[in-house]
Amino acid sequence: MTKNRLEAFSDGVLAIILTIMVLELKVPHETTWQALRALWTVFLSYAISFVYLAIYWVNHHHLLHASDRVNGAVLWANINLLFWLSLVPFTTGWMGENALAPLTVMVYGVSLLLPGVAYFILTRALVRLHGANSAFARALGADFKGIASVVVYAIGAGLASWFPLVSIGLYILVAAAWFIPDRRFERA
Amino acid sequence: MTKNRLEAFSDGVLAIILTIMVLELKVPHETTWQALRALWTVFLSYAISFVYLAIYWVNHHHLLHASDRVNGAVLWANINLLFWLSLVPFTTGWMGENALAPLTVMVYGVSLLLPGVAYFILTRALVRLHGANSAFARALGADFKGIASVVVYAIGAGLASWFPLVSIGLYILVAAAWFIPDRRFERA
Amino acid sequence: MTKNRLEAFSDGVLAIILTIMVLELKVPHETTWQALRALWTVFLSYAISFVYLAIYWVNHHHLLHASDRVNGAVLWANINLLFWLSLVPFTTGWMGENALAPLTVMVYGVSLLLPGVAYFILTRALVRLHGANSAFARALGADFKGIASVVVYAIGAGLASWFPLVSIGLYILVAAAWFIPDRRFERA
Amino acid sequence: MTKNRLEAFSDGVLAIILTIMVLELKVPHETTWQALRALWTVFLSYAISFVYLAIYWVNHHHLLHASDRVNGAVLWANINLLFWLSLVPFTTGWMGENALAPLTVMVYGVSLLLPGVAYFILTRALVRLHGANSAFARALGADFKGIASVVVYAIGAGLASWFPLVSIGLYILVAAAWFIPDRRFERA
Repeated sequence: MTKNRLEAFSDGVLAIILTIMVLELKVPHETTWQALRALWTVFLSYAISFVYLAIYWVNHHHLLHASDRVNGAVLWANINLLFWLSLVPFTTGWMGENALAPLTVMVYGVSLLLPGVAYFILTRALVRLHGANSAFARALGADFKGIASVVVYAIGAGLASWFPLVSIGLYILVAAAWFIPDRRFERA
Repeated sequence: MTKNRLEAFSDGVLAIILTIMVLELKVPHETTWQALRALWTVFLSYAISFVYLAIYWVNHHHLLHASDRVNGAVLWANINLLFWLSLVPFTTGWMGENALAPLTVMVYGVSLLLPGVAYFILTRALVRLHGANSAFARALGADFKGIASVVVYAIGAGLASWFPLVSIGLYILVAAAWFIPDRRFERA
Repeated sequence: MTKNRLEAFSDGVLAIILTIMVLELKVPHETTWQALRALWTVFLSYAISFVYLAIYWVNHHHLLHASDRVNGAVLWANINLLFWLSLVPFTTGWMGENALAPLTVMVYGVSLLLPGVAYFILTRALVRLHGANSAFARALGADFKGIASVVVYAIGAGLASWFPLVSIGLYILVAAAWFIPDRRFERA
Repeated sequence: MTKNRLEAFSDGVLAIILTIMVLELKVPHETTWQALRALWTVFLSYAISFVYLAIYWVNHHHLLHASDRVNGAVLWANINLLFWLSLVPFTTGWMGENALAPLTVMVYGVSLLLPGVAYFILTRALVRLHGANSAFARALGADFKGIASVVVYAIGAGLASWFPLVSIGLYILVAAAWFIPDRRFERA
C-alpha cells in the first residue's frame, strides 16, 4: 500500500479547505477604505485559519515522511483528521463574523481541539504499525506537544464564556508552539 | 498508460467533492446554541456523505493498487464512477434539508445505488483487462459484496415511500459492510 | 523539465472545473418530483460538460503520455487550453438555464471551438519540440480529427441563430468522435 | 524531505485559486448580447488574474525544478507565497467590478506587490539552503527581475490615486517581463 496516494489525497483536501475559505472574503460594492476595513475580522479569521491549516500540512508532511508505510487503520485515522479539519473554516467564519462572541470562541476552541485529538490518534496508528521500538516511534517520542495542545485547547474552550480573549491567547500559544516544524523527524 | 495519473485525477475529484459539501454548512448570523442546533441535519448529512465518499476513496485505492495497468475502458469506467459520486452531495443535501422526507430518502438511495453499479462496472473492466485467471481477478473474487450492496440499495430505495427509516437503516448497513477495507487485496 | 508536474497541474485544474459545475445543481426547497424535474436542463448541461471535459482529460492524458518531454512553449500552450476549458461551465450553464435559446447555443459552440483551437496549438507545440520526424509526430499524424472538430464547431456556431437543434447535433457529433480515445498513441 | 510534495501542494492550491475565480463570472438571466457584454470587465479581470497566477506557476515550477532539496524555512516561505496569491482573486474582482476606480487599482497593485515580495523571500530561503556558491544560486543570479518587479509595483500603487491607467500599464509591463520563463534555469 503506497503512502504516496495518502499524501496526495490529504494535500488535495487540505489545499481545498485552505482555498475555499477565501470565498468568505466577499468583494464589497463600494470603493472606499471603509468597505475594506469592514472586512477586517473576516480577513483576520482567514489568515488565522490559513496558518493553522498550514501548520497541520507541514507536520503531516513530516509525520508521513518519517513513516515507512501505511495500513487501513492509518488511512481511516487520516480521513478522520481531514474531516475535523474541514470544519475549521466554518467555526472560524462564525467567530470572525461575530467579533469574538464568547460562544463562538468556545466552539472555535472545540474545533481546534478535535483535529488535535485526531492527529494524536493518527500518530498512535502509525506507532502501532511501525512498532513501539521502531525508529519512527523513537523519533516521535512521548509526543508531549500533541497531548499538551489538546489540554490547552480544552482549557481555552472552558474559559471562553468568561474570558474569551484569554482563550484566544491560549489558542495562539499552541499555534506558535507548532509553528516550528517537528525537529524530531528532521533529526531522525 | 500509467495508472498513477488515473489515481491522481480521481483523488483530485474525490477531494473536491468531499470538501465542497462543507460549503452547505453556512455560517449562522446569530451566536446562540439554537443557531448551531438548527444546522444539525445539515451537519449529519455532511458527515454521512463524507464517510460514504471516503469509503469509495479507500476501496478505489485498494482496487487500483492491486491492478497492474489500466486501459481506455478502465479510464471511462472510472470517469463514470466519478460522475455518479459527484451527485451524492446534491441528494444528501436535499435529504438533510428536508428532515428525511420519503421522496428525498428514495432519491438518496438511488444516488447511492448508481455509484455502486459504476464501481461494479469498473471492477469488471479491470478483470477483463487483467484476465479472468489473473492474480487481480482471483483477489477480487466473485465480488459478492459489490453485487449485494446494489441489491440492498435498490430494496432501500423501493421501501422509502412507506418506511423511510428502514431505508436509512439499510443504507447505513451497506456503508458499515464497506467500512472495513477490502482485506482481499491486502492478503493478495 | 518534468512533464509530471504539467500533468498534475492540469489534472488539478480539470478536476476542479469538472466538480464546481455540480454547484449549479442547487438543492430545491420542495420535496416533490416537480422540483427535481425543474432541474432537468441544469442536470443535462452538467452531464454534457462533464463528458466534454472528461474527453479532454483522456486525450490530454494520451497526448502527454506519448510525449518525451515539455518546454516553456508547451507549458503556455497548456495553460491556454486550461483557460478556455475553464469557461465551458459558464457557457453550458447559460445554455442550460435558458432552454437552448439560439444566442446561448451559438456562444456555447464558440466555447467548444476555442479549446479545440487551443488543443491543436498544444499538439503543434509538442510536434515542434519533438521534431517533425519523431515517433511522437508520426503517432499524431496529420491530426485530421483536431482540425475537423474546429471546423464543425464553427459551422454549428454559425447555424445556431437559425437551427439551434442542428447545432446541438453537430456538437454531439464531435464529442462522439472524440469519445473513442486516440488509438494512434495506443498503437505507437 | 521531498520537494515533490511541496510542488504537489502548491499546484493544488494554485489550481484552486485559478479556478474559483471563474465562479465570479455568474450566468446572466437574459439571453442577449447586452447581458454578455455587461460581464466584460469581470471576464477581463478573470483573464488578467489567470495569466498572472499562471506566470507564478511557471516560474515556481522552474525555481523548484532547479532546487535540489527543501527545508522547513522553504516550506514556510512557500506557504507565505500561497497566502498572498490567494488574495489576488479578491482584489482583481474588486477592481473589475468597479471600472478601475483609483482605490481599487492601488489595492490591486499592493496585492501584486506582496506575492512579489513573498517570491523573493522564497528565492532567498532556497539560496540560503543551497549555499551562495551553489549551481542554484549562480543560476538565479542577482535576481534583478524579482527586485525590479516589486519596485515597479510599488510605484504603480503609489500613482494609482492620480493616474490609475498608468498604474495598470506598469502592472502589465511587469507581467510581460515575467511572461518569458526564467531562461536562467533552462540554461543551467
